[in-house]
Amino acid sequence: MAGVTTIGDRAERVPKQDRSRATRQRLLEAAVSCLAEHGWAGSTVTVVAERAGVSRGAAQHHFPTREDLFTAAVEYVAEERSTALRALFPQGAAEDRRAVISALVDLYTGPLFRAALHLWVAASNEEQLRPQVTELEAHVGRETHRIAVDLLGADESRPGVRETVQGLLDMARGLGLANLLTDDAARRDRVVTQWAVLLNEALA
Amino acid sequence: MAGVTTIGDRAERVPKQDRSRATRQRLLEAAVSCLAEHGWAGSTVTVVAERAGVSRGAAQHHFPTREDLFTAAVEYVAEERSTALRALFPQGAAEDRRAVISALVDLYTGPLFRAALHLWVAASNEEQLRPQVTELEAHVGRETHRIAVDLLGADESRPGVRETVQGLLDMARGLGLANLLTDDAARRDRVVTQWAVLLNEALA
Repeated sequence: MAGVTTIGDRAERVPKQDRSRATRQRLLEAAVSCLAEHGWAGSTVTVVAERAGVSRGAAQHHFPTREDLFTAAVEYVAEERSTALRALFPQGAAEDRRAVISALVDLYTGPLFRAALHLWVAASNEEQLRPQVTELEAHVGRETHRIAVDLLGADESRPGVRETVQGLLDMARGLGLANLLTDDAARRDRVVTQWAVLLNEALA
Repeated sequence: MAGVTTIGDRAERVPKQDRSRATRQRLLEAAVSCLAEHGWAGSTVTVVAERAGVSRGAAQHHFPTREDLFTAAVEYVAEERSTALRALFPQGAAEDRRAVISALVDLYTGPLFRAALHLWVAASNEEQLRPQVTELEAHVGRETHRIAVDLLGADESRPGVRETVQGLLDMARGLGLANLLTDDAARRDRVVTQWAVLLNEALA
């Protein structure tokens, strides 16, 4: 009967699912590293499968197209980063807004941002990639905005607060871009300190 | 004798220089459009020469390498944009800071930003391109900062003012990125309005 499994079936199936999940995860992580290091032109399913130690066939079973693999990878790592960001402030809205702003800005300075940037820029010229990346960007952007509002304790029912937070996240993205070719950490730290002062007044 | 030219020589030389300058300018403009539309991978000296209606040999006479052509192009158009931005506010420091912020943000939403972004992202993976683009970015960044300080009437001798302006330009860059795949004009306008209020207070 459909839906009924014997204990024997179940025992065999569960580790198989685990293996499948582990393979998928290795592929996603390898895909983000590959994008960050080699850009879109140098990132193919074959290169990622090799890097993850997975056969090309297995990779294609999980992700039928190159576009599927790389958008899923950026989404997966973005979700991991969001979870890690919330975990930094387990109490929710933090007293120390500078720490929250600094952690938000950190989202845009690592390999994930570098990978996402390669994907965005490629999508701007490739019609095939564009719809998936546009949807991904909107989804990740909404989630990051929600986290920022929560952790900053921002009251979006007050006029201007929503746009204040949006502008902060735009600044964070711009800081990520400024860090692409050179280590911009020292300047970035001073900008974050100053904008934390401005935001503290604006959100008070 | 070296350095001495007859009137006849001069009459012949001047129009030739003009023609050469016009060719150079056509190449630079074609290079920026090409980068913005097709990205780094689709942008070669041959494609640009064709677009500009110039022979490949003439293009290579002006720009020995692909890297020379595209970095010179982004620099040239950035300087044109800077001049145009200053011309918008002929009196220097403007009363209306919102108008200045809006004009600064506009620098990052057109074809020039798109072209520069392709160049930055390519330089992050291509060692050959990196030093030239890093230098270009630093130079254009300093010039934009100087214009922003002048037009906003910002007093950088006051603590925090320099970082306030830097953060604003980072925000402008981030807004440019947010406009890459979708038309973000309506949201951007609201962010600019709100941050003009905050910056007016901060710079007062």
